[in-house]
Amino acid sequence: MVSRLVRRWLAGCSGASPGWWPKGPCGTLVRTAGAFGPLARRACASTARPRQVTLTQERYPVRRLPFAVVSEDDLAAFERIVPGRVITDPEELEAANVDWLRVARGCSKVLLTPRSTEEVSHILRHCHERNLAVTPQGGNTGMVGGSVPVFDEVIVSTALMNQVISFHGVSGILVCQAGCVLEELTRYLEPRGFAMPLDLGAKGSCHIGGNVATNAGGLRVLRHGSLRGTVLGLEVVLADGTVLDLLSCLRKDNTGYDLKQLFIGSEGTLGIVTAVSVLCPPRPEAVNVALLGCAGFAEVLQTFETCKRVLGEILSAFEFMDSECMRLVRRHLGLTCPIQESPFYVLIETSGSNAGHDGEKLGGFLERALGSGLVTDGTVASDQRKVKALWALRERITEALSRDGYVYKYDLSLPVERLYDLVVELRARLGPSAKHVVGYGHLGEQGHGRRFRQRWEKTPVISVVLL
Amino acid sequence: MVSRLVRRWLAGCSGASPGWWPKGPCGTLVRTAGAFGPLARRACASTARPRQVTLTQERYPVRRLPFAVVSEDDLAAFERIVPGRVITDPEELEAANVDWLRVARGCSKVLLTPRSTEEVSHILRHCHERNLAVTPQGGNTGMVGGSVPVFDEVIVSTALMNQVISFHGVSGILVCQAGCVLEELTRYLEPRGFAMPLDLGAKGSCHIGGNVATNAGGLRVLRHGSLRGTVLGLEVVLADGTVLDLLSCLRKDNTGYDLKQLFIGSEGTLGIVTAVSVLCPPRPEAVNVALLGCAGFAEVLQTFETCKRVLGEILSAFEFMDSECMRLVRRHLGLTCPIQESPFYVLIETSGSNAGHDGEKLGGFLERALGSGLVTDGTVASDQRKVKALWALRERITEALSRDGYVYKYDLSLPVERLYDLVVELRARLGPSAKHVVGYGHLGEQGHGRRFRQRWEKTPVISVVLL
Repeated sequence: MVSRLVRRWLAGCSGASPGWWPKGPCGTLVRTAGAFGPLARRACASTARPRQVTLTQERYPVRRLPFAVVSEDDLAAFERIVPGRVITDPEELEAANVDWLRVARGCSKVLLTPRSTEEVSHILRHCHERNLAVTPQGGNTGMVGGSVPVFDEVIVSTALMNQVISFHGVSGILVCQAGCVLEELTRYLEPRGFAMPLDLGAKGSCHIGGNVATNAGGLRVLRHGSLRGTVLGLEVVLADGTVLDLLSCLRKDNTGYDLKQLFIGSEGTLGIVTAVSVLCPPRPEAVNVALLGCAGFAEVLQTFETCKRVLGEILSAFEFMDSECMRLVRRHLGLTCPIQESPFYVLIETSGSNAGHDGEKLGGFLERALGSGLVTDGTVASDQRKVKALWALRERITEALSRDGYVYKYDLSLPVERLYDLVVELRARLGPSAKHVVGYGHLGEQGHGRRFRQRWEKTPVISVVLL
Repeated sequence: MVSRLVRRWLAGCSGASPGWWPKGPCGTLVRTAGAFGPLARRACASTARPRQVTLTQERYPVRRLPFAVVSEDDLAAFERIVPGRVITDPEELEAANVDWLRVARGCSKVLLTPRSTEEVSHILRHCHERNLAVTPQGGNTGMVGGSVPVFDEVIVSTALMNQVISFHGVSGILVCQAGCVLEELTRYLEPRGFAMPLDLGAKGSCHIGGNVATNAGGLRVLRHGSLRGTVLGLEVVLADGTVLDLLSCLRKDNTGYDLKQLFIGSEGTLGIVTAVSVLCPPRPEAVNVALLGCAGFAEVLQTFETCKRVLGEILSAFEFMDSECMRLVRRHLGLTCPIQESPFYVLIETSGSNAGHDGEKLGGFLERALGSGLVTDGTVASDQRKVKALWALRERITEALSRDGYVYKYDLSLPVERLYDLVVELRARLGPSAKHVVGYGHLGEQGHGRRFRQRWEKTPVISVVLL
């Protein structure tokens, strides 16, 4: 049953890559950063890339499994299930066949845009009976090629499943369809005094269903934890069309095994997420951002530790970047670094319920960090414009890199202490064959790793830029 | 394979009851509160209960499945696996055969106390090969009969698996054996500046493995979320002895399906948890507790909403109790209520990194709550002795109830707005046949429930006291 759902599902900023994705020096991005916004999107389009993306099946040694081919009868059946929403026009299909990074391309002949769970169920039941392969697709913002077909799979898009089903003002629990765009949900919650528990650069396009299917982390994991805690329930359609109603609205549901967890991060291999129940935190009253300079990576880690201790419950993000990242952001995007040059930079965000208290706490932390020499220079912003400008230095690194040359990006997970060693090691090994080797990312998702295992999680990012 | 592990596992304060547990007017506790401490334990022992607990197999219409019976050869084999730790003395077995509430009793002939995962694996492999049924047992503090055998199952206790494996001061990640007692872990973390993400009355006896196996919630769910987010990894031994190493130390691990989630809350039906990796939050610098009076349940809910908004990130517990609870606590335990009598009481705890800020926030909240009439009276404590005294009013309700008569306890989950209706309804229906019908519990775990389903989660508690 499961085999019919081809092993991928669009990521709202993806985590693990699908199993089929080839490794090694194949000349494509095999690992990418999490935070890409509309700016990065524009930048990507403007860089010199081949107009025509090579078909994935030509680029990699992949073999089509013995699925059926979509027939005229199938199209007629789809037309009965989703009337007027069966897309076969090649130009319209192009966008759904090619991933955002333009490195993966399928040749699907049909894109379906259901509006309801029932429609998804009917589509999958038909495909199951006809032995047709399916690729679920959300916002198509994924970075590991998981959101587009490899061959001629039927694309089932959640784009029209964009309705909020319910929101409860006391519990902060939002129930919505899988195709809701993350930023639109944030906008829906704002006047109601709540926020989404996750945030990422692709928020303007990514779908909440894709976020869940890829267990997207993003910038707020430090504060609100992973989706495994904040997603309370899911509705999923299995490959044979069975609707699995796991749409609980409880913070804890101990009735039987927590099956929904299997779907979080399963990248669409077990079913299509059609609705999500999310526990939303209250919107913070005050947000502060500090940009600090550190002399070494050891100081970055110590700053993180001090920061967690002094800022405690108001710490909502902790990002680092090295001096090469800062140089590239300045050179290619013309951004200004408001503090003196340092080997490392740290961006700290606080979110709290009392601006005065948060300011005092942050002030106390900075005094301590500067006094002890952990931090060599720093600046703090609390008004929205300045906060955005500081965040841009970190969020636009990917964009700057893409303007610098051909980029290999690796989201790695290593014991925190040894994390930056990899950048140093790579620089030494690659020598002049790499234009730049840089390291950046959030420390919040990081564990200490009792063993080395590649492809663990997606932060931080090591990028190698080639000429 | 799975069938060999009999359907239960000791809870550190259990959630769902095992499927076999009979419902209806059977004269026993079928649902119980979460928070029981040493005091409650003493109280329970002091109440008039039959010395000899009826065998579960005699009390309920349960049927022994065709498992083998432990032979002398089995005992010899166990002796080779865990030398000197094969307990067959009837008096020593008594404690492991009877649950803490003394309502369930098995007749196991052997208790094994392995020290390592390897020993657990060897035991289970042997039982699997010999078709012997097994009951895993932690601290035996569970309230739903899940921790003791029904028939003559082999009891495998984690009591000697009480070693901390590692603790990492930067990430706050603790890795320990399943038999570590919750309170001892808290004591281990305290001087290191960290705390356990869960807390419950049974902390002095319950094992972390049991907490995980039953997905225990407790008093801090509001702040740190459920164990599904804070448990990063597990080591589990399956029924055939296979060791499943899911002991990740990452906040997010997207490599494949998150199988460990199946074991959280599975009550030992899928395997025995032998080690746990937990993400520990920093220990709060300041703790405040407020006890407030509310005129009605609607005001309790509004206070919760206001509280979440004003106290935001420092709110760590929100408990309510009705006036009958308070009366019983005063009458049976001689506790003093420091505020004027009210139909409802609310206990609010804040935990933060700055005592001054937290005090100010709490003061602001109280001013608002009193000013708007949500709250009619209140008191605040910040020194440890007074904090404990206020907590006792809530935590010792169970003890007071057990002194009041024969108690039926139900942990229910309902839409928050309709939650207390059940108490009112029950009072009306039972009339003079119930001595008291009371309602209390935490609101933090509560969802808004899009549908009614009994036996959802374990809060809040409706207790019916019979004469």
